[in-house]
Amino acid sequence: MAETQNIAVGVPRESAPGERRVALVPKVVGRLRAAGLDVVVEPGAGGGALMSDWLYEEAGATLGDPWACEIVVKVAAPTPDEIHRLKPGTVLIGFLGTDVEALSTADVHGFAMEAIPRISRAQSMDALSSQSSVAGYLAALLGAQHLTRFYPMLTTAAGTVPPAKVLVLGAGVAGLQALATARRLGAQTTGYDVRPEVAEQVRSVGAKWLDLGIEAIGEGGYARALTDEERAEQVRRLNEAVIGYDVVITTAQVPGRKAPVLVTGDSVTAMRAGSVVVDLAGESGGNCELSVPGEAVVRHDVTIVAPLNLPAGMPEHASELYARNVQALLELLVDQGKLRLDFSDEIVAAACVTRKES
Amino acid sequence: MAETQNIAVGVPRESAPGERRVALVPKVVGRLRAAGLDVVVEPGAGGGALMSDWLYEEAGATLGDPWACEIVVKVAAPTPDEIHRLKPGTVLIGFLGTDVEALSTADVHGFAMEAIPRISRAQSMDALSSQSSVAGYLAALLGAQHLTRFYPMLTTAAGTVPPAKVLVLGAGVAGLQALATARRLGAQTTGYDVRPEVAEQVRSVGAKWLDLGIEAIGEGGYARALTDEERAEQVRRLNEAVIGYDVVITTAQVPGRKAPVLVTGDSVTAMRAGSVVVDLAGESGGNCELSVPGEAVVRHDVTIVAPLNLPAGMPEHASELYARNVQALLELLVDQGKLRLDFSDEIVAAACVTRKES
Repeated sequence: MAETQNIAVGVPRESAPGERRVALVPKVVGRLRAAGLDVVVEPGAGGGALMSDWLYEEAGATLGDPWACEIVVKVAAPTPDEIHRLKPGTVLIGFLGTDVEALSTADVHGFAMEAIPRISRAQSMDALSSQSSVAGYLAALLGAQHLTRFYPMLTTAAGTVPPAKVLVLGAGVAGLQALATARRLGAQTTGYDVRPEVAEQVRSVGAKWLDLGIEAIGEGGYARALTDEERAEQVRRLNEAVIGYDVVITTAQVPGRKAPVLVTGDSVTAMRAGSVVVDLAGESGGNCELSVPGEAVVRHDVTIVAPLNLPAGMPEHASELYARNVQALLELLVDQGKLRLDFSDEIVAAACVTRKES
Repeated sequence: MAETQNIAVGVPRESAPGERRVALVPKVVGRLRAAGLDVVVEPGAGGGALMSDWLYEEAGATLGDPWACEIVVKVAAPTPDEIHRLKPGTVLIGFLGTDVEALSTADVHGFAMEAIPRISRAQSMDALSSQSSVAGYLAALLGAQHLTRFYPMLTTAAGTVPPAKVLVLGAGVAGLQALATARRLGAQTTGYDVRPEVAEQVRSVGAKWLDLGIEAIGEGGYARALTDEERAEQVRRLNEAVIGYDVVITTAQVPGRKAPVLVTGDSVTAMRAGSVVVDLAGESGGNCELSVPGEAVVRHDVTIVAPLNLPAGMPEHASELYARNVQALLELLVDQGKLRLDFSDEIVAAACVTRKES
């Protein structure tokens, strides 16, 4: 039985509420099959992304129990029940989060997609970036959807309405994609970041650069946390700046910390009625003081939207990009159809957050 | 008391469920005041559009009972209760609908915004067009929001996703705005209409023209109803065409009739999973056989959205455009601060659907 010699990759159905993504899509299944891997998909795994079991089978996957496979690929971190189903020695890939003790106890090799180092050789595995692209795009659309006004300038027989002004705070992948999307839709865009070196990238997507005169260059491409004095000054100057905008999209997060408050309740009060704040930092506490994570609320006639897990809102392409990131990592972990974990490789070492005792 | 000599325009709070628009906005209140009209706004009238009473007062309106005014401007047709509050001889302006018997009994002058003739002198009063612009823009956004994929092409380190293909059926104001918006967002767009003379307009917004070889030129800029044979052939050819698109936006309506079915259940079945149908004809029965008016449903892994009263979803600008249309009509009905209904005027005669017996 030649089939049993291949390593099998299991694709469970995601169990987190609202999670419509799936770790592998049919298109990528075909590529993994070509690379000598079997793929076992849990029935319904692609259902949230509107991809049927049949599409997986057509791509060469079999339907079955993904947890019995040598490699299990997920999007979200596994629940305690799911960890219980993993065999010792399994390679588990996903956004594993910070609490990896249970994985360690289960004796699995855990590879965290969010721990992939930001080096050029690992770009194709950078799932934080690919999912941030989706989030930034959807954030700009959410702003348009909740705004009581048009994004583009509109000229009608009865007169003209001016274009919306969109400000994006934080010019990482999500922020740049939000700027690009809002601009595409016809808005006038402005970007802000504490890292002055991203000004050129902001301008490259057609946006103006908002210079508040406060810098905070950190490690690994992220911003460092500001000092208390810098923070107070930043918030004061931002409060003045945001008032002129129809839509403010905030994307400021510092890894492992509560998100900084950039838009205070006072500045919401001063915004023009009908304006919108889209807060992408809802999961880590929010960049807007009035955000209610997971909800859209109206405060002082301003709509404040703080979506959770935005990439799940565009599940096919979010899954496809994620699956390609996973595929790139798998190609590093598997050689000629066999697992070969080379912990001397910088990427393998960095991404591995728990390791089976050997 | 000079004030009492001015004619007063009353602006009620709209009572229809989900109606967030208002017939006059503060900006237009100022212009009417300058033209010698008083404006009386019901408290909370702008609330759905997030425009506070204070903004109206600042523009020169007073808060009070709008139903006592000589002129009452509305968006939606009045309810029986509201008609009861109108004094005989009142001029009522709004989308009055086809059932105007109660208005006639109440002895009011009813001017229906949807009855404004489509002549160039009346373009500034064309509320059907201005509201269709809003609907078309929002329809393209709704498609993007429900699609499981990106509209624009996206190039990432892990590969490229292709742009979405968007087909718009019906190239009136709503259809053209939907095409323009989807194209702005990066989609590849195609337009179809039974009126071959709009092909140039479709191309002018960057879309391809889908030629099915069936024509139906009607009166007043609308399409005529097709014969049964033409309809069957049209649906057969459309069924073949829609299969290749990620998003199909339908805008086909024939005034006073049930909307034609353009997208059958069979063609939904044949569409690629994750695709979207946005049906703008939900209010008149729908252009898609599987539409559920007012809802977004998933059938055969395709999302079918049939929104009701889409312009209410962008209430400030929808109201502002509508208010400018109303302002233009008021300027025709009022001369130097006095009502002067000149029924020999083509626009006045056409728009007047009920007239006080004199």
